[in-house]
Amino acid sequence: MLDNFFNPNSIAVVGASRTPGKVGYDILKNINQYGYPGMVYPINPGASEILGKKAYPSLIGVPGKIDLAVIVVPSKDVIEVIGQCGTKKIDSAIVITAGFKESGIEGSKLENELIRKAKESGVRFIGPNCLGMIDTHSKVNASFAAGMPARGGIGFFSQSGALCLAVLDRALPDEIGFSKFISMGNKADISDTDIMLALAEDENTKVILGYIEGVGDGRKFMEVAKEVTKKKPVIILKSGITSSGAKAASSHTGALAGREAAFDAAFRQSGVIRAHTINELFNFALAFANQPLPQGPNVVIITNSGGPGILAADACDKSDLKIVSPHKDVVDELRTFLPTAASFYNPIDILGDSGADRYEKALTTVLKDEKMHGIIVLLTPTAVVDVDETAMAVVNIAGNTDRPILTSFMGKQRIGSGAKTLLRYNVPNYSYPEEAVSSMNAMYHYRVWINRPEKTYPQFHDLKSKAIHIFEKAAEENKERLTDSEVHDVLTAYGFTVPRSLFARTSEEAVAAARGIGYPVVMKIVSPQVIHKSDMGGVKVGLDSKKAVENAFFDITTRVRNIMPAAQIYGVMVQEMIRGGKEVIMGITKDAQFGHMVMFGLGGIYVEVLKDIAFRITPLSQEDAHEMIRETKTFPLLRGVRGEAEADIEAIEKSLLTLSRMAMDFPRIIEADINPLLVRKRGEGVVAIDARFAIGGE
Amino acid sequence: MLDNFFNPNSIAVVGASRTPGKVGYDILKNINQYGYPGMVYPINPGASEILGKKAYPSLIGVPGKIDLAVIVVPSKDVIEVIGQCGTKKIDSAIVITAGFKESGIEGSKLENELIRKAKESGVRFIGPNCLGMIDTHSKVNASFAAGMPARGGIGFFSQSGALCLAVLDRALPDEIGFSKFISMGNKADISDTDIMLALAEDENTKVILGYIEGVGDGRKFMEVAKEVTKKKPVIILKSGITSSGAKAASSHTGALAGREAAFDAAFRQSGVIRAHTINELFNFALAFANQPLPQGPNVVIITNSGGPGILAADACDKSDLKIVSPHKDVVDELRTFLPTAASFYNPIDILGDSGADRYEKALTTVLKDEKMHGIIVLLTPTAVVDVDETAMAVVNIAGNTDRPILTSFMGKQRIGSGAKTLLRYNVPNYSYPEEAVSSMNAMYHYRVWINRPEKTYPQFHDLKSKAIHIFEKAAEENKERLTDSEVHDVLTAYGFTVPRSLFARTSEEAVAAARGIGYPVVMKIVSPQVIHKSDMGGVKVGLDSKKAVENAFFDITTRVRNIMPAAQIYGVMVQEMIRGGKEVIMGITKDAQFGHMVMFGLGGIYVEVLKDIAFRITPLSQEDAHEMIRETKTFPLLRGVRGEAEADIEAIEKSLLTLSRMAMDFPRIIEADINPLLVRKRGEGVVAIDARFAIGGE
Repeated sequence: MLDNFFNPNSIAVVGASRTPGKVGYDILKNINQYGYPGMVYPINPGASEILGKKAYPSLIGVPGKIDLAVIVVPSKDVIEVIGQCGTKKIDSAIVITAGFKESGIEGSKLENELIRKAKESGVRFIGPNCLGMIDTHSKVNASFAAGMPARGGIGFFSQSGALCLAVLDRALPDEIGFSKFISMGNKADISDTDIMLALAEDENTKVILGYIEGVGDGRKFMEVAKEVTKKKPVIILKSGITSSGAKAASSHTGALAGREAAFDAAFRQSGVIRAHTINELFNFALAFANQPLPQGPNVVIITNSGGPGILAADACDKSDLKIVSPHKDVVDELRTFLPTAASFYNPIDILGDSGADRYEKALTTVLKDEKMHGIIVLLTPTAVVDVDETAMAVVNIAGNTDRPILTSFMGKQRIGSGAKTLLRYNVPNYSYPEEAVSSMNAMYHYRVWINRPEKTYPQFHDLKSKAIHIFEKAAEENKERLTDSEVHDVLTAYGFTVPRSLFARTSEEAVAAARGIGYPVVMKIVSPQVIHKSDMGGVKVGLDSKKAVENAFFDITTRVRNIMPAAQIYGVMVQEMIRGGKEVIMGITKDAQFGHMVMFGLGGIYVEVLKDIAFRITPLSQEDAHEMIRETKTFPLLRGVRGEAEADIEAIEKSLLTLSRMAMDFPRIIEADINPLLVRKRGEGVVAIDARFAIGGE
Repeated sequence: MLDNFFNPNSIAVVGASRTPGKVGYDILKNINQYGYPGMVYPINPGASEILGKKAYPSLIGVPGKIDLAVIVVPSKDVIEVIGQCGTKKIDSAIVITAGFKESGIEGSKLENELIRKAKESGVRFIGPNCLGMIDTHSKVNASFAAGMPARGGIGFFSQSGALCLAVLDRALPDEIGFSKFISMGNKADISDTDIMLALAEDENTKVILGYIEGVGDGRKFMEVAKEVTKKKPVIILKSGITSSGAKAASSHTGALAGREAAFDAAFRQSGVIRAHTINELFNFALAFANQPLPQGPNVVIITNSGGPGILAADACDKSDLKIVSPHKDVVDELRTFLPTAASFYNPIDILGDSGADRYEKALTTVLKDEKMHGIIVLLTPTAVVDVDETAMAVVNIAGNTDRPILTSFMGKQRIGSGAKTLLRYNVPNYSYPEEAVSSMNAMYHYRVWINRPEKTYPQFHDLKSKAIHIFEKAAEENKERLTDSEVHDVLTAYGFTVPRSLFARTSEEAVAAARGIGYPVVMKIVSPQVIHKSDMGGVKVGLDSKKAVENAFFDITTRVRNIMPAAQIYGVMVQEMIRGGKEVIMGITKDAQFGHMVMFGLGGIYVEVLKDIAFRITPLSQEDAHEMIRETKTFPLLRGVRGEAEADIEAIEKSLLTLSRMAMDFPRIIEADINPLLVRKRGEGVVAIDARFAIGGE
């Protein structure tokens, strides 16, 4: 895929310049100087030759075929050049030029025009407003970055050109190897998903690294990421966590779902590894690009000093990695050559007077323990240790095992060349033990991801047809929310148990309804304007007599009228009072980029005060429903503490899957809450006590 | 303090060697080669001269006065040398030699002997089992480390010699400046607190940096740290978080109080800044050593690229720093020279075509905004930017402002010399924006610490005398826990309100008691063996009739007998049933290093499932009590959610202070829980419903 970008037989630089320092010059120079073997055509109407290459006045005048056009002309001319690409049958272009969407309204219009023209002309393009692209294997450096990274397995794409520069500059002196470097710019045409797919196919790329600030089509992103992460690790640094201004939301689910919740869910559901800092992005990339994945969580630490060993063990303890003692036979063997003052367990402290030979022996010995899935080697530059020799010893062993070895040779002056040796032979060295641990942990997480079985999606009968008339009617009437009786109908259509309830216009009707349902009952205001009924004094519970119902009718209607004089009060809903069980809340919300999400949390203060909630993007798999319940900190309360009975967790899972189905069936749902959903004992199911639905356009 | 260590007029190296590679040689060489101006005496019975210095057979034979002895002889000979120090009136020694406590039982004995001998001889010593000590200002390098750090303001002490080596090796190529480097070894005599006090006094030390795995005397540590942190920042990396094996505890408070809780509380209460990784330790040290503290939380970010700016803003958002918009006048001024595509708010993006001049102007302009307390400057190595020139521009401005400026010039190859320039002129440069932010945040926290008013400690009447007889009796009887009636008496002596309760041996007595107290009542088993009464079925609540009390008596005694056949059942306690209010839990626990701590959390599942608790080491100040309540995530529940009344938070504070007083009064208390403490509405106080006290020796 995107072959003409990454492996073109010929490149034209449209807007090539003779003036050093100009972007049109730097790009041509970069293409020339890093050994690109194909044809290069500078396009410049005022020049006959640039940097030793014959120049042409326009693309049209170039005699041969052109695979890739790199466009550096002023923004007003870009669209014309794209047209020429079409004429010349050039299907791939990189638009370096800025001055498009990033620059305001005029630029936005220009970008739309560019997109249109490119589609019409059959041209795919990267950019605009980008730094260009580098492929180390085909030796294409179609960028104005200073330098060419070493060849290697990291494929990097970035929404920020500046970050490309910083990463490249960081990589150069350490000869960190990259396969591709792609500055995505405004992503007007070629998107993150296009690049992920191309990198997934690219045999030179072992790990896909990305920096994004947002994605265009969240659904597509997830769909592609899910497939790609089965083949290769995808590590992404996502910025823009600070969502400016929380939107005024009309339901709990909406208020609780920030954009971060959507990204977190999307990454989790599609196996993307999230880096939280640039440093992590780098650290993880080095591990994945150079070392095999661990088969499990067990890590053994070999160190020549106690302190760093403890720090590494602490870091393991905070991660999902496990520090287990080596097998007895291994300990016995260690005893044969380590000094008695050494520590034979884990971390294995081979002491400060260790040389390379002792490191080598210890490493060889612990590798005999099959239950050790990964090894972390720590070194402090003592007077006796030969750092380079030790690095070579580690490298030799790492080359002969299928288990990951990460190192932290600490320091800088005496460590420098050893660290380089390690990396050159594919053993990443980290400045600090904690970084080696977090990188190993990321690898372990990815192992868990690729080992997990295919997700299972539940089959539903057609439920949609039973509820479609409600949503259609609401759409016709331009309603913003469903009425209580519509909510009731939607919930029952989707198989939710709801309390028996009867609508009453007068206190007499209320008494009759209560008698029909059976005391005690709950009464709730029915008014299209009253959304948070309890907060308005519009709910009364435990009404166990005629008198109580009559009083409640009066109380409720008076209180709501006092608080909201303008509210239309239709009457009250008289409901069966369900007792016992635990309150949970679940709902649907809609993210601008990822669409519908389903939310879950324990009801009341757990959600409101502790924000102890979990999100998944629809459709939910059975595994998603299972995991999201267990993800909340309050989950033990559902399983039952202090001898309580276990709640019907299966019924919660089923409800979440049903909500997911409902969201898929009705794109009009903007937000929905079932709050509370009462969960009874295991086997006894759930009851949707109250719910709200906000709807909008498709 | 410790002047003869840090600024000796003469040094003897006992065990000096002529063999390169031996520690006794390396130390002498280090003392010689870094310009130490004082007298140096190698002590070696078999040599007449080493490294150009006249050697002596023993300390006694040295003609002049010796200020400091560095001891490198075999462990069996160390004690004799210490004796000679005494004879020769040398009051300061560094014992490099290993083979003491760290090596097992024999070594432990030897160390005790060493301590005894040193005390008897009037010798203070660092070590044993250490790397030695460096003072860059007096040019003493009495260590066997390879290299001498640059002069600077960081005073570093470390329990791990290896970490000293790693830190030194990391510091050398970047010329990071240190005042002192002290390898503490086994801390047999000179302790962390001694060193902290000495560094606090040392005028060359601006920031105190430490690595510890534990402290000997936790109370002393806190007391000293509290004083020292008023003068200078103390940053400590504490390892050993993984407490091996949780101790079997007999109360909630005990089970919840890990050693980490004690260290966290101790650091917080004494103003110590905790670093969580070696990287953080370094990063924080550089900020504190080189830049002034911010006066407040407002940070402005200046960047030449969007992505890194967003990453920095995200990091601020996760910290306590604030990103505020610049003053209108400042924005207006920025508009006069920045391109229109720039971002004028915060982060201020001066765009990728910025040169040093634009950085300089932008920086000068934002500094006119007095409400900006700190500045973070980000740079990515674009083609146009002159990194060195920009570094000089930043340095010049930083030298003329009293506000902190931290930078993250990102990359490595093109950044290297600029980063060095920055650091040379006291502007720390961080590899990644997030590191600059977390360092600024640490400085802001320290500013808050030094600005806070003196803590206030409440005055108590003598409460001890009212309860002392209970504890004395318990001690005489070797009791492990107080009986219910003793608990009752202790609580009332300390002014806690407790439910009215009467002991009943039979169901008839129980009925009489209930009648006296008034229905409804609570009944609880009274048995010395039953600690967790509810779990044993030993509690019944809401008993509102004679019949109910009779049944409950039978139920409770039968159930407990069935579950614990061996338990002695004395009868039941009939208690007034207190209704309403919120349940909290508070308690006392005893940490091996820090002594008594007071714990607080919301009762029931909040403590048990969510572990939402706070600790403070006694004595608690009023501020401690105030803060620890507000530290819990569930605090909003006490303030009242959804229109609930506020709980009596003042009464909780008073109770915590009372518990602190009680712990101070009675060192015998090992653990105590008041669980639940029922908190009523504001102004209505608290009631201690149930409590447990475990006691031991002093």
